[in-house]
Amino acid sequence: MQLETRNSKLPYAIGVDLGGTNLRIAAVDERGQLLEKLTSETQVTRGRDFVIDEMTHAIRQLMEKYKGRSELQGIGIGVPGIIDMDTGMLRESPNLPGWSQFPVHAEIERRLGAPVMLENDANVAALGEHWLGAAKDYKSMGMLTLGTGVGGGIVLDGSIWHGLNGMAGELGHINVEPEGHPCGCGSHGCLEQYASATAVVRMAREAIAAGRALGLARLAECSDSEFNGRAVYELAAKGDEAAKAVFERMGRALGLALAGLVNALNLPIYVLGGGAARAWDAFAPAMFAEIRKRSFVYAATVPKGSAAPAVSAGTGSQAARTGKSTVIAVATLGGDAGLYGAARLSLQRGQ
Amino acid sequence: MQLETRNSKLPYAIGVDLGGTNLRIAAVDERGQLLEKLTSETQVTRGRDFVIDEMTHAIRQLMEKYKGRSELQGIGIGVPGIIDMDTGMLRESPNLPGWSQFPVHAEIERRLGAPVMLENDANVAALGEHWLGAAKDYKSMGMLTLGTGVGGGIVLDGSIWHGLNGMAGELGHINVEPEGHPCGCGSHGCLEQYASATAVVRMAREAIAAGRALGLARLAECSDSEFNGRAVYELAAKGDEAAKAVFERMGRALGLALAGLVNALNLPIYVLGGGAARAWDAFAPAMFAEIRKRSFVYAATVPKGSAAPAVSAGTGSQAARTGKSTVIAVATLGGDAGLYGAARLSLQRGQ
Repeated sequence: MQLETRNSKLPYAIGVDLGGTNLRIAAVDERGQLLEKLTSETQVTRGRDFVIDEMTHAIRQLMEKYKGRSELQGIGIGVPGIIDMDTGMLRESPNLPGWSQFPVHAEIERRLGAPVMLENDANVAALGEHWLGAAKDYKSMGMLTLGTGVGGGIVLDGSIWHGLNGMAGELGHINVEPEGHPCGCGSHGCLEQYASATAVVRMAREAIAAGRALGLARLAECSDSEFNGRAVYELAAKGDEAAKAVFERMGRALGLALAGLVNALNLPIYVLGGGAARAWDAFAPAMFAEIRKRSFVYAATVPKGSAAPAVSAGTGSQAARTGKSTVIAVATLGGDAGLYGAARLSLQRGQ
Repeated sequence: MQLETRNSKLPYAIGVDLGGTNLRIAAVDERGQLLEKLTSETQVTRGRDFVIDEMTHAIRQLMEKYKGRSELQGIGIGVPGIIDMDTGMLRESPNLPGWSQFPVHAEIERRLGAPVMLENDANVAALGEHWLGAAKDYKSMGMLTLGTGVGGGIVLDGSIWHGLNGMAGELGHINVEPEGHPCGCGSHGCLEQYASATAVVRMAREAIAAGRALGLARLAECSDSEFNGRAVYELAAKGDEAAKAVFERMGRALGLALAGLVNALNLPIYVLGGGAARAWDAFAPAMFAEIRKRSFVYAATVPKGSAAPAVSAGTGSQAARTGKSTVIAVATLGGDAGLYGAARLSLQRGQ
């Protein structure tokens, strides 16, 4: 199977996931078959030019390898930050210091001599899940990536919705608690402050500080360095009430934000990805209860007691075929969603 | 001018605004020229069939009049309620008792023998403002109609965004205060509970009950029957602190809801219509302060101190031409937005 895939003669694209930690590059053909994947560390500390050198070198390697065999449609790059779609500059990127106000797009295109498309990382993750993942049977979808922060992306009729200047899809900054925890964006009570991996740890520490979480306190004492979202989740899975309460709060925040999206956009499917989405079992019941309470549009499309609230990884498309039901599902491509989505950018353009 | 308009030979459509109080019907040509307008009372109490008789009779009158002169593209009807786009049935309509679960669309089309399109009233208002009003120079827009309740509509690339089953655009139920005032939809703290004419009166009465609003209390005593949104606004305009506070709260709620829409959709313009939007002067400063605080996407597109926050009726399009600025503007078509939007439904289909 792997061999057959590698011998694909179909047009292909190169997708790049330029993260603050890892740089991943893949060749993907137009049917979504992965031809090859390269992974390395993003050596951010060695500076912008070093990273661009590494990246363009690896891309050129792939281009050489497939030259003559299949036709390259272009290169799509997902980057963590806000991109000015008109100029191809990064407006702001906390994970890539020194990259803002630099003409990333023009520089990479110049070096490679091939068409390059730059896109926000959460948007390419949404496009990837729409193309090959949990939302592959739907024309439109919304995605929340629950990671260090909460990223978002909206795909309407098959294309990323950019809005006025490419800043659409900032779903992590939907408000869920007007007087809530301060957010880096300048507001208070953004979804990101309750539904990211960072937020899970913070809420767990708040519970410890409030003196009502002995299990969490013990966990933090034993291994402070490993006091992360996964550890809190494992404690919740064992039945620890304070740990469970953290994920219930996460679920309520997600439900409230999703209710707003359902009321405004009435999309057929909302996909939750990123590391913190793995705690689905712990947060989903509170999330579904909240969204039903907050959105009569959701309640109208998902009859109470129907199977839809149980929808999780991989079953979204089945639920959809049974009727016009709003689906909330876990992402299925894991960390590769952005890689596929980035490749898709160029393949879509070629269509 | 009026004569010339009436002699238009361009294709035309009939737009109907079927409200709980008034029934308004207009013939509008494809350039947006009003050919004729009929207004009558909606005699809801005489029952569904009576109203449908009245409406189809008036529509037929117009059809006869323009027969042979111009080509009828169809009839668009805006109705207050949720429409099942697949079946053409009203799912729910508090203002039209007895109409739900009735095949409105099929019945009217059968009687008239012409293509009929049914649409939610807030959606047609958005389409009207997009076609001929405050958003006429924009491809996409969002609209909030601040009336008895708060209606919403989203137009993307020129068409009403319907979503999965036509329920998109329920922007009045975006949450602005999770533990806030109960809403008819089953949630608490929906935008509608702070930004409708009904909400203005309720918040004013709450201030009186709290014993911190002598001016409002006097107003309520003098003319309880006329204690409406306009009277509270006039008191605020005179400088009454408690009345001003009501509109500041309205502005904060609007700002918070709009911030979520800007973060999610990054639309170029948001239009505020309906009777309560006339209190713009009283609520706009708090609204703009809140949206700037809550949406870094807004802040990035509207530099502080720029002219944009002052945008009001009619100036939206000028602001837009100066760059990629997020505009928030007052509707310009008044009560006719829905009438034009309803006609537009059929004219768009003919394109």
